[in-house]
Amino acid sequence: MPAASPARDERENAGIAARFADTRALTEALVQPLGDADATIQSMDDASPAKWHLAHTTWFWETFLLRDHAPGYTLFDEKFPFLFNSYYEAEGDRIARGRRGLVTRPSLDEVLDYRRHVTAAIQPLLEDPRHAELVELGIAHEQQHIELLLTDIKHAFSKNPLGPAMWDDNVSPRAGGDLPQTERHAETDPGLRRGSPHAFEDGWYSHPGGIARIGHQADGFAFDNEGPAHRVLLEPFALSKQLVTNADWDAFIADGGYETASLWLSDAWAWIARCNIRAPLYWRDGEQFTHTGWQERDPNAPVTHISYYEADAFASWVGARLPTEFEWEAVARGQHADDAPAHDPAGGNQLDPVSSWAAPPMPRGSDGLFGDCWQFTRSGYLPYPRFKPAEGAVGEYNGKFMSGQWVLKGASCATVRGHSRASYRNFFYPQQRWQFTGLRLAKDA
Amino acid sequence: MPAASPARDERENAGIAARFADTRALTEALVQPLGDADATIQSMDDASPAKWHLAHTTWFWETFLLRDHAPGYTLFDEKFPFLFNSYYEAEGDRIARGRRGLVTRPSLDEVLDYRRHVTAAIQPLLEDPRHAELVELGIAHEQQHIELLLTDIKHAFSKNPLGPAMWDDNVSPRAGGDLPQTERHAETDPGLRRGSPHAFEDGWYSHPGGIARIGHQADGFAFDNEGPAHRVLLEPFALSKQLVTNADWDAFIADGGYETASLWLSDAWAWIARCNIRAPLYWRDGEQFTHTGWQERDPNAPVTHISYYEADAFASWVGARLPTEFEWEAVARGQHADDAPAHDPAGGNQLDPVSSWAAPPMPRGSDGLFGDCWQFTRSGYLPYPRFKPAEGAVGEYNGKFMSGQWVLKGASCATVRGHSRASYRNFFYPQQRWQFTGLRLAKDA
Amino acid sequence: MPAASPARDERENAGIAARFADTRALTEALVQPLGDADATIQSMDDASPAKWHLAHTTWFWETFLLRDHAPGYTLFDEKFPFLFNSYYEAEGDRIARGRRGLVTRPSLDEVLDYRRHVTAAIQPLLEDPRHAELVELGIAHEQQHIELLLTDIKHAFSKNPLGPAMWDDNVSPRAGGDLPQTERHAETDPGLRRGSPHAFEDGWYSHPGGIARIGHQADGFAFDNEGPAHRVLLEPFALSKQLVTNADWDAFIADGGYETASLWLSDAWAWIARCNIRAPLYWRDGEQFTHTGWQERDPNAPVTHISYYEADAFASWVGARLPTEFEWEAVARGQHADDAPAHDPAGGNQLDPVSSWAAPPMPRGSDGLFGDCWQFTRSGYLPYPRFKPAEGAVGEYNGKFMSGQWVLKGASCATVRGHSRASYRNFFYPQQRWQFTGLRLAKDA
Amino acid sequence: MPAASPARDERENAGIAARFADTRALTEALVQPLGDADATIQSMDDASPAKWHLAHTTWFWETFLLRDHAPGYTLFDEKFPFLFNSYYEAEGDRIARGRRGLVTRPSLDEVLDYRRHVTAAIQPLLEDPRHAELVELGIAHEQQHIELLLTDIKHAFSKNPLGPAMWDDNVSPRAGGDLPQTERHAETDPGLRRGSPHAFEDGWYSHPGGIARIGHQADGFAFDNEGPAHRVLLEPFALSKQLVTNADWDAFIADGGYETASLWLSDAWAWIARCNIRAPLYWRDGEQFTHTGWQERDPNAPVTHISYYEADAFASWVGARLPTEFEWEAVARGQHADDAPAHDPAGGNQLDPVSSWAAPPMPRGSDGLFGDCWQFTRSGYLPYPRFKPAEGAVGEYNGKFMSGQWVLKGASCATVRGHSRASYRNFFYPQQRWQFTGLRLAKDA
Repeated sequence: MPAASPARDERENAGIAARFADTRALTEALVQPLGDADATIQSMDDASPAKWHLAHTTWFWETFLLRDHAPGYTLFDEKFPFLFNSYYEAEGDRIARGRRGLVTRPSLDEVLDYRRHVTAAIQPLLEDPRHAELVELGIAHEQQHIELLLTDIKHAFSKNPLGPAMWDDNVSPRAGGDLPQTERHAETDPGLRRGSPHAFEDGWYSHPGGIARIGHQADGFAFDNEGPAHRVLLEPFALSKQLVTNADWDAFIADGGYETASLWLSDAWAWIARCNIRAPLYWRDGEQFTHTGWQERDPNAPVTHISYYEADAFASWVGARLPTEFEWEAVARGQHADDAPAHDPAGGNQLDPVSSWAAPPMPRGSDGLFGDCWQFTRSGYLPYPRFKPAEGAVGEYNGKFMSGQWVLKGASCATVRGHSRASYRNFFYPQQRWQFTGLRLAKDA
Repeated sequence: MPAASPARDERENAGIAARFADTRALTEALVQPLGDADATIQSMDDASPAKWHLAHTTWFWETFLLRDHAPGYTLFDEKFPFLFNSYYEAEGDRIARGRRGLVTRPSLDEVLDYRRHVTAAIQPLLEDPRHAELVELGIAHEQQHIELLLTDIKHAFSKNPLGPAMWDDNVSPRAGGDLPQTERHAETDPGLRRGSPHAFEDGWYSHPGGIARIGHQADGFAFDNEGPAHRVLLEPFALSKQLVTNADWDAFIADGGYETASLWLSDAWAWIARCNIRAPLYWRDGEQFTHTGWQERDPNAPVTHISYYEADAFASWVGARLPTEFEWEAVARGQHADDAPAHDPAGGNQLDPVSSWAAPPMPRGSDGLFGDCWQFTRSGYLPYPRFKPAEGAVGEYNGKFMSGQWVLKGASCATVRGHSRASYRNFFYPQQRWQFTGLRLAKDA
Repeated sequence: MPAASPARDERENAGIAARFADTRALTEALVQPLGDADATIQSMDDASPAKWHLAHTTWFWETFLLRDHAPGYTLFDEKFPFLFNSYYEAEGDRIARGRRGLVTRPSLDEVLDYRRHVTAAIQPLLEDPRHAELVELGIAHEQQHIELLLTDIKHAFSKNPLGPAMWDDNVSPRAGGDLPQTERHAETDPGLRRGSPHAFEDGWYSHPGGIARIGHQADGFAFDNEGPAHRVLLEPFALSKQLVTNADWDAFIADGGYETASLWLSDAWAWIARCNIRAPLYWRDGEQFTHTGWQERDPNAPVTHISYYEADAFASWVGARLPTEFEWEAVARGQHADDAPAHDPAGGNQLDPVSSWAAPPMPRGSDGLFGDCWQFTRSGYLPYPRFKPAEGAVGEYNGKFMSGQWVLKGASCATVRGHSRASYRNFFYPQQRWQFTGLRLAKDA
Repeated sequence: MPAASPARDERENAGIAARFADTRALTEALVQPLGDADATIQSMDDASPAKWHLAHTTWFWETFLLRDHAPGYTLFDEKFPFLFNSYYEAEGDRIARGRRGLVTRPSLDEVLDYRRHVTAAIQPLLEDPRHAELVELGIAHEQQHIELLLTDIKHAFSKNPLGPAMWDDNVSPRAGGDLPQTERHAETDPGLRRGSPHAFEDGWYSHPGGIARIGHQADGFAFDNEGPAHRVLLEPFALSKQLVTNADWDAFIADGGYETASLWLSDAWAWIARCNIRAPLYWRDGEQFTHTGWQERDPNAPVTHISYYEADAFASWVGARLPTEFEWEAVARGQHADDAPAHDPAGGNQLDPVSSWAAPPMPRGSDGLFGDCWQFTRSGYLPYPRFKPAEGAVGEYNGKFMSGQWVLKGASCATVRGHSRASYRNFFYPQQRWQFTGLRLAKDA
């Protein structure tokens, strides 16, 4: 594992007010390259305008902190809740999701004013221990939207035929050098059907099976869907040390992966036919669309922007499978061997909560289970035993989405470092691809 | 548990040839009330024409037994595979699912000829032990289609504004009297939010938790998705002895269940709004549509024709939850107490494989976990550890549907008695309602 | 012009009761090859089941004659109006158009019983002069449905992958020989852009322009949309003596007609892209689907089953245009030259109202403006000056469809001989193709 | 007729270069209130972003003038033709119409730079008589887009739940006072079914019928679809002197107009049911949405933002009808009586091509046939006799839209004064309502 950088440690130990400030500043730093129009449009129903993310996170603070707990606070604008509530039924009516891109007024500047107003108003409440839990939730919530903002605006830019860059390509995708490039070697597990060197070259984490303790078990903040902690019985298995790479995916395509019905789930086969899917999202010949425009693909970098359907088909093609969320978590916690350390959730290639960089990092491959991309599991996104949503509007945060979606583990290059945990459960529908999604193979032992 | 009837025992002990004959005869007995047009139309994409079921089951026998194992056999009609293959990619192209209702030729009579031809041709292979496994699969396959045929034709008749009856209502919905009517009493679990007398009156099966052995573990036939057998760790829980009834559901509606956002999954809330869902399928005022036309609803009968979305919302309303498939199976196997017997999979209100009745039974309430209706679990339909689909076209039977669907356990009044098992996993999408689907509540202990 | 056959003359002079009997008999003769299923399914929203045509025409007689004018008459079945009303808002609610194919009961036999009942009940009213107008309307209405029945059932059969034949091909498509085969010669109008021998070889009817009297002007029956008679000012023009043929259309395809944007209306270009249109409906290689199954195409026969969009594009390709409805009618009435006779509306290749044939005729090419196929005009289907719909439900017959459709003139091989007139206005949407639709070119003089 | 203002006369006599400058300046003046986001979004497929209009009109000048006729000119940006070509197939591929709102780059400022560049580059060509025709076309084209820009941005603003105003309401809707307010009186034509005072109070223009000369007949510029001039035979008729008003429409609604099937065309009745249409677009209680936000409706102002379907139903309700385009033009030309002067196409309430005002005028009612709103006719948008589209890409201007649309005559408050003519043919689909569309009744004499 790469050691955590001093700067990061410092931040982690910092007080909650500093982390609040960092998070708000990061959000705003990210939108600096955006014009009013960039920040306003909505390129698909799944995505939201950047401006909406800026405002919605602010509405969250204003509603659940200021309105509910700051005596005498009056709303910045009484019409904003209708515009910027996302999905909280208990908080009243709101604009239809697919129409968020029609709100040109308030402008980007006005929304930034709104942000400044709420950020200032909230200062007195930050250190009040009665609100600590809500503040932690608000920070985690805004961090989630930072990742969505980055992926949503990438999607929007990708729809422009000119393929504009959000940031100049002045940062090498492998810059920094803090991540040691593992020596590649070519021995492949003979039990796997197809030679797929990269996916397997660095070996496997072996787990002997047995009872694993799953879910949030520490003191710090976690979302309600990460608990309650409970035990799960695992069969022996192994988890790949490496993410599947672009080169691996090229091999899958070259072998006719997208044309071989037997590799695909029934829903998946219908989906690739209906939507004419033949490659990951954002691929075009040897290039991929990035925050810095169209760029040559790095064959050694982890593949990203794939759907669950594709991840599952790839695993079938190799003769492996996706891990369950429990298997993944057990390895992340270092339960697979006596001397196995836990993986550092703040390690790997993630987004640093400072505003000094030019562009967010690209997937590039790194040690550890966290970073680069969210990793599909074969676990449906379902409640843990004895799960109960929180009371009130906040209780709509997670539980009501427990249908039809799949759990992803880890963290991506667009995840704010410090946001994720071993128990963290990200979730998406099986056809969604606009996040930095990838895969790490598993196999029965 | 009601004792199995002598007739049934006899059949179970009968040879495979007799069971083959029974199954084929049952299919044909069920379509006797149908005209050529009744048997041809398709009322929605999810449903298939009765004629198609008659022919598809025959195609299955013809393809996997006769074509592959009967030397010199020539196809009854070379064009039938295109018409009557369901979804086996390995078996070639086929008519689009939604266009099955456009095939008026061959007529019903011609399809019945096809059935007779294949039934006769297959006789020599039935007792050959080399084909026993395939014959068992063919019988199980045809039994599944018997249930689909019954629910599909019910759906088709329901779309006729005249509401025609497939059978005369000459059978009382509670006729037979072989099922003792349990005394109803009104004590309700005080921990549950709402008074729902029927759902709880007869108490609960309590399970202490621990390691349960799940999946097919016996000698007999099972589908590939029921295995491999494996261990699962359960928390303590309880499972209701009673199915939720029509009266319970009336109470849910009267309490505004369909208008209360907090009870519903997010996808579910969108679905009931989009499709204007306000009651179970086939409900109209105090009536429901049945194979014998529009009938007054029995308040004490189990509610049926509900979706997963509705089952989940109902459980939330009561303050309970749906069981997992593992909890359900553990109780079905009698693992919940030292003296708890296993439930008889052939017991309860199911479809008897003889042709002497006038109409299939209606849901009516019965002891035991099997019968009346399939029961939703909160388990996604996913592969068991080390699951591998069978080789060849038959391998497409189950595995490729493991995405987006939910497991249901038990058996319904339209399930051929003898077809189900404790390990049986039925599965449907969360919005589907045209099967005899219902629910049995669970709660944490 | 071919002389009218003696049999036809006799029928024309026959009393209204005989024509009523003939029409009813013809409808029933046409469905003799159909099974219950054939007669029940609906292959698209535009088409209706054969059984529905049988019943709807009967409902029309029952409603507007028997119910309104036969004292003491009671409906054959009180539920039938809901099932068999087509679109008369004034006659109450009715089954949604797209769900007509879900009505398996009443069966075909029961509908034939309904027909017999109503046919018998109506006899006493037939000769009553007070009802003559309504009886004429009922006959014309049923004749329209005869043509729809033939084209709808053809469409339904075409959707069956087996391509079944409704009638045996025991009739040569050019049998009879009563229509002289014109000598073909190849001089083409030099002003036309492309050589298209067949379309022009037989020359043109020239019209000097001037004031033409348009619309129904005689004593006999006509639909309300054919009047009032009025004058229209025409510029000099010419109308082709020949229909465009299959060979002409092959040349259009070979020349890239379907790939040349400049030939197509904007809506048309979007339509052929969206629906992937590359040939007339029912074409497959050198064959076309007919009532006698898949048959080799006759290159000299008129092209049929084309849309307005295609007809217009073809005319642009040739450098000609479609005629207006007024130009067509002026030629049909013989107004184009001093010695030009009127074309016989009962001539040419149409459907004879007797039941002695095996299959209806195929398009084959004939002299005169009537027969073989309906011919697109470039006239929108709009009201004539001073047009007023009739009072009451019958007033919904035509006027409410005067939006978005195009006028077609002539008659087709599926039109009952005697049904059409020079003033007759058929009308369809520009993308519809399942009728026997074709084209006859025009050009400015 | 109101006298033309001196300013206007001056402009009309001005040279083509001045009119070019005015038109370009007007376009830019109109977008001054817009931010980058306002100018970028697309609120429906029918509408285009304001920025797109700014750029497309410029592309038109750049392509057909500069590229084709300015030696040595190089494109401002080689990628712009893909972005800003509207529908000219001959000019190559282009962005799909519904995705114009995803182009955030170039920004509004960059597009204004593009405009300045092209405006400057074109100066040397303006006075060259060889290009006069193209320059006139370019001016007329940009004037059309000015009207679309105004109606498209109004639609976009209307989709914002906040209902923002594009201009302050600092202009009285009846300001200016140059239009004499006619005395209202209540005598209604007794032959009309319903009392509808406003629609009829000011009497009718009577036309005796006969041969009218239709289409462009003068020297000046006209679109190709206005010719060739030709004669049409008219029956005697009368055309209302007044547009139908908001008060008239309120009466229609109050009388159940939207719930009375017999008033509506069949397609219209399906459309109002499917889209739940119950009032003109932009109506909310007693208000309507305008460029100055939500405003109280003026009952005496002409009704606008109605569809053809609604106009036709209203006319049926009154017992009148819509005029044909020929009738309207004949009256506009003063052919209805010996002493009837032609109506001034530049009169009435239209948009003045100067940039001194704050907001464009609202419909308010005025004398003459031009101004306030485009008026539906019952004429389908079809080619005139001997119509031939121009050669080349410019030939795609009008002809290819001659299917499924209806002709509107006159001019609206958003039409640049001087743009319209008696022969002008505007055209829209029957369900479109986002233009300033209204109606003027006609009746048979």
